[in-house]
Amino acid sequence: MARWLRYRHAGTEGFGRLEGETVHVHAGDLFGEARPTGQTLPLPEVTPDLPCRPAKLIALWNNFRAMAEKQGLSHPETPLFFIKPQNSYAAHGETIAMPPVAGRVIYEGELGIVIGKRGRDLSPEAAAGHIFGYTCLNDVTSLDILRADPSFLQWTRSKGLDGFAPFGPVVATGIEPLEASVVVRVDGRERQNYPLSDMLMPPNEIVAMISQGLTLEPGDVIACGTSVGAGTIPRGATVEVEIAGIGVLSNRFV
Amino acid sequence: MARWLRYRHAGTEGFGRLEGETVHVHAGDLFGEARPTGQTLPLPEVTPDLPCRPAKLIALWNNFRAMAEKQGLSHPETPLFFIKPQNSYAAHGETIAMPPVAGRVIYEGELGIVIGKRGRDLSPEAAAGHIFGYTCLNDVTSLDILRADPSFLQWTRSKGLDGFAPFGPVVATGIEPLEASVVVRVDGRERQNYPLSDMLMPPNEIVAMISQGLTLEPGDVIACGTSVGAGTIPRGATVEVEIAGIGVLSNRFV
Repeated sequence: MARWLRYRHAGTEGFGRLEGETVHVHAGDLFGEARPTGQTLPLPEVTPDLPCRPAKLIALWNNFRAMAEKQGLSHPETPLFFIKPQNSYAAHGETIAMPPVAGRVIYEGELGIVIGKRGRDLSPEAAAGHIFGYTCLNDVTSLDILRADPSFLQWTRSKGLDGFAPFGPVVATGIEPLEASVVVRVDGRERQNYPLSDMLMPPNEIVAMISQGLTLEPGDVIACGTSVGAGTIPRGATVEVEIAGIGVLSNRFV
Repeated sequence: MARWLRYRHAGTEGFGRLEGETVHVHAGDLFGEARPTGQTLPLPEVTPDLPCRPAKLIALWNNFRAMAEKQGLSHPETPLFFIKPQNSYAAHGETIAMPPVAGRVIYEGELGIVIGKRGRDLSPEAAAGHIFGYTCLNDVTSLDILRADPSFLQWTRSKGLDGFAPFGPVVATGIEPLEASVVVRVDGRERQNYPLSDMLMPPNEIVAMISQGLTLEPGDVIACGTSVGAGTIPRGATVEVEIAGIGVLSNRFV
């Protein structure tokens, strides 16, 4: 079990293994050969960066029993998804400016799967070996944009505005996410708390099914969908997404 | 007016201005400072590459009058779009293997807008200055996947499989695309031919509206949507998308 962080420090970018409040700096490639340099940095001295740089961020819809039941949805046979573009990525600690065009904006706390190895057409067994680790993700969504046009649900635009995909603070390896819960707090008050064991499709099946005809690359992230309790982000609020073993992703929305 | 090509040659990657059958090699950045090196290469000696590497490829739905009329769709107030991920990009000349999971696959010939300058919240007037040029694009789509789940139209997966976004062969600058037509040929037989002047929203309005709250980067591509005449790609067929002033994008599908 390890928690991997990317950071900026003294004008440079780097990555390392986080132990307590100490970053053990590494060189090389997080998804290839990563070796300790021997250098350490105190966590408060670095600025957290995105823990990886996904070529694509795939986000699932309708993947929790409680949510499907509440909304009267059937259980999908394959993952149903959209993509959150690179302009929407935001690091832990970043302040996110909600653009006026977004109208009513909601948080959706989610587990993010981080891919570690290039692969396609994977079996669920093989897919497990392509999962490098897990991160916390906030699938920020403009409800006003999502349903603005009756002919076309705007999944991409409503979820793809600048800063609408914060994830981090780390990629955690060697954890068993289905034993954890996703907890979301808005200004310290708990608003979402659901067990990841309620997922309709576990991570290795998600990865296997998405990979049919579609190559997944190291650093790609798959957000596993949210469950009940998503709600409005008031202007000025701080939203935290916490998953045991990963940590707390915190962003202020203005 | 210029036609810019990226290529591979003798183990290296490069870009240049295409004049007739000659590539005038350039150094620097296509979207920044590009200067001729003096070297030239005969076109048949290079392998065409993607003419740019989009951080995101945004693709519009319902943007042509003839198509909206045929399908009984209203005219949208803003561009309605999805994203084609990086694994779907394919260069001119590449052979594209249609995965069995795709089932029935169709071509959709489209104009691609290539962004040249970082920008957000642009007016239509300002947006014109952010358009670097234009390319040809085939918005390849699996019809079987698109409508496989009655609860969720799978725009992303049906259009995001490996090789489902060929574009090229060049980025053409200084052309007036609304004076041109998109012509698609399947094994040499014309199957699609529609005037770009039939667009509901012209390129500068598309760019301006998409940029509200969403940063567009140099090299990003926006596919303007297709019109009537999209149809099945038989296995083994060669599909050509031609737009006057840009050229012919050709790919074989197996």
